Amino acid sequence: MVASEVRALFAVASRPEVVSLAGGMPNVSALPLDRIGEIVQEVVAEQGPTALQYGSAQGDAVLREQICEVMSLEGIEADADDVIVTVGSQQALDLVTRVFVDPGDVVLCEAPTYVTAINTFAAFQADIRHIAIDDDGVIPEALEETLARLTAEGRTVKFFYTIPNFQNPGGVTLSSERRRRVLEICQRYGLLVLEDNPYGLLRYEGDPERPLRADAPDNVIYLGSFSKTLSPGFRIGWALAPSAVRAKLVLAAESAMLSHSTFNQMVVGRYLSTHPWREQIKDFNEMYRERRDAMFGALDALMPAGTTWTRPEGGFFVWVTLPEGLDAKAMLPRAVSERVAYVPGTGFYAGDEGHRHMRLSFCYPTPEQIREGVRRLVGVIKSETSLRDTFGSTSVPPTSGSDAPTPDIP
Amino acid sequence: MVASEVRALFAVASRPEVVSLAGGMPNVSALPLDRIGEIVQEVVAEQGPTALQYGSAQGDAVLREQICEVMSLEGIEADADDVIVTVGSQQALDLVTRVFVDPGDVVLCEAPTYVTAINTFAAFQADIRHIAIDDDGVIPEALEETLARLTAEGRTVKFFYTIPNFQNPGGVTLSSERRRRVLEICQRYGLLVLEDNPYGLLRYEGDPERPLRADAPDNVIYLGSFSKTLSPGFRIGWALAPSAVRAKLVLAAESAMLSHSTFNQMVVGRYLSTHPWREQIKDFNEMYRERRDAMFGALDALMPAGTTWTRPEGGFFVWVTLPEGLDAKAMLPRAVSERVAYVPGTGFYAGDEGHRHMRLSFCYPTPEQIREGVRRLVGVIKSETSLRDTFGSTSVPPTSGSDAPTPDIP
Repeated sequence: MVASEVRALFAVASRPEVVSLAGGMPNVSALPLDRIGEIVQEVVAEQGPTALQYGSAQGDAVLREQICEVMSLEGIEADADDVIVTVGSQQALDLVTRVFVDPGDVVLCEAPTYVTAINTFAAFQADIRHIAIDDDGVIPEALEETLARLTAEGRTVKFFYTIPNFQNPGGVTLSSERRRRVLEICQRYGLLVLEDNPYGLLRYEGDPERPLRADAPDNVIYLGSFSKTLSPGFRIGWALAPSAVRAKLVLAAESAMLSHSTFNQMVVGRYLSTHPWREQIKDFNEMYRERRDAMFGALDALMPAGTTWTRPEGGFFVWVTLPEGLDAKAMLPRAVSERVAYVPGTGFYAGDEGHRHMRLSFCYPTPEQIREGVRRLVGVIKSETSLRDTFGSTSVPPTSGSDAPTPDIP
Repeated sequence: MVASEVRALFAVASRPEVVSLAGGMPNVSALPLDRIGEIVQEVVAEQGPTALQYGSAQGDAVLREQICEVMSLEGIEADADDVIVTVGSQQALDLVTRVFVDPGDVVLCEAPTYVTAINTFAAFQADIRHIAIDDDGVIPEALEETLARLTAEGRTVKFFYTIPNFQNPGGVTLSSERRRRVLEICQRYGLLVLEDNPYGLLRYEGDPERPLRADAPDNVIYLGSFSKTLSPGFRIGWALAPSAVRAKLVLAAESAMLSHSTFNQMVVGRYLSTHPWREQIKDFNEMYRERRDAMFGALDALMPAGTTWTRPEGGFFVWVTLPEGLDAKAMLPRAVSERVAYVPGTGFYAGDEGHRHMRLSFCYPTPEQIREGVRRLVGVIKSETSLRDTFGSTSVPPTSGSDAPTPDIP
């Protein structure tokens, strides 16, 4: 399948009779829509002439203070001067890449990792190198070995991109012990860390880990977002960066968009200052925990032997490894015709990898839909397994180009 | 003055006692704020779960149809498939530059031209070449001569960036005759035109000119915006591009921000479908005409001999040429201490040019403020002229780096 075929397939997959375990869309219907309707009107009524005007490239000063408060929940101490408001954390990713990456520079990231990050790094012609992860997140030895090899080769490595909490797509979280080691290795090699943390506050069990930024303010650019804890529809994300980097990012933002929407920034600011947003996140966490547990329950009960999956303590995604000889990408059209969709693992690697994997998301469908979706998926996997037993591997030859089914899978 | 000094100066210039003729901010207070307050609430109430969700990188399909209707007012026939919604037309500029420009490629633009366009071209390491303009817009012979020379030198010229209507900062409009010649020259050289038209509908007298895009759909990327006709606070602009280019721009947009704010797109869509927006633009034009006429009146009555200015039929800006030996950049601190601000001409060139020029804007201050601002400015110019007569030229040696007082002057 080439990219256009995947897109066509996803068009079919968005039909109502298909249970989609593919998209990473938050369940915004659970928001207090009446209150949000009031907030947007209040911003126009009370702050209209400012809200509807141009703003600064760095972002609204009040919101940047509030963002510092949000980050303090996870143990980050930051100055609002070092925050820049962006069009989702995607724009922050883009600005960081454009500031740091020259064609051919190496960017390190986890294997697998967020598909649109790969696309952005590739857009700036980075040489993307993957570092293996396991159930405790990225493997420090693998990181160190890669850095040692690249250094010996005289390569320029610009940064290490990581999603330490409830990784997309892996679902895994970097352990405390490994956080220390990763920071130690990166500091030793003088390597900047790009910490992407959209899901950190969406934890359904266990104790929160300290962000890498909290322990290495000078070595880490931290990316945050209101897309998962409030709404992606306002496109408010941010970067927190060491001052020298922040100044460069502000110039890049000015070139990229002049300024972000003042209105949207004030809406998010007013939501934070007038709505019990911490309680709202707790409510979201109840809802998402129930959905995650529905997925765990169905996987545990129904998946055939030889299939394994991660057990995320938060976030939106479970990463499934299929029995040997099965190919999630080749299997997708058959799954869609059985009215269930997922994202094949191949989208989450820069090279041709990940055929035995798929990402299942539990954020958007209801628990009932999740159970039904997994039931259908298990049917497909079982029938693929018998095919394999009869005819051998179901994999397809590698295709060229990105096969990521974006834009549907943030 | 270096960039930081200019910024500091503009911080002073934003004090209430200073009449600012510097910024290009539309007068959003003239908007029907009550109705806009209702619209934003209606979008949440009636379309909340969609409006607050991720959207497509290309932009909302309904809004793209409406954008085609807006463009049809100026004679453009377009397919919504070829429209991409962007974060202001600034993002469109940025995406086009990133898709087309490799370091060292030549980009042609008018002399002077929009400061943030220069910054964007420079950010992608374009070799920026200016083409002279006069009261009828860009001079075709100058364009042709430059193209012939660059072609002879074997240089790669990527596009010609032009603001044909009420140019920023020149205020001039490209005549019909010259539009034909510019298109003919660009087509002969196979050169893409990047037509930036934020002010086209803000015409206060005279007959509208046909956009370049209307007569050369395959050779022109057209940029539009709701920032001046509605509000810059929603950051909704667009590009209309030939299909092959549009597909590349959509991929670049996806990398740059995943998707624009669905909410903002729906707000603008609902405004267009429920508010008499054509009448609203007529009201704006009445208001801005009065402001422009206040500026013309004050300039005509007060400016000393040897000072000249353009006479824009629309838009926001008048371009002033000072008597020989005066330097608008050197004069700015003295003007600010006399409680009037403007943008020195030097900001609108890639090189060290424009010292004798300044941009005055009449969009944001009231007619009374404009008259008072011009009165103060004339006092400064007269005292500079006596200084010049006593001590010779007031100019300062060239400084390096961009001295553009952004982000205040869209």
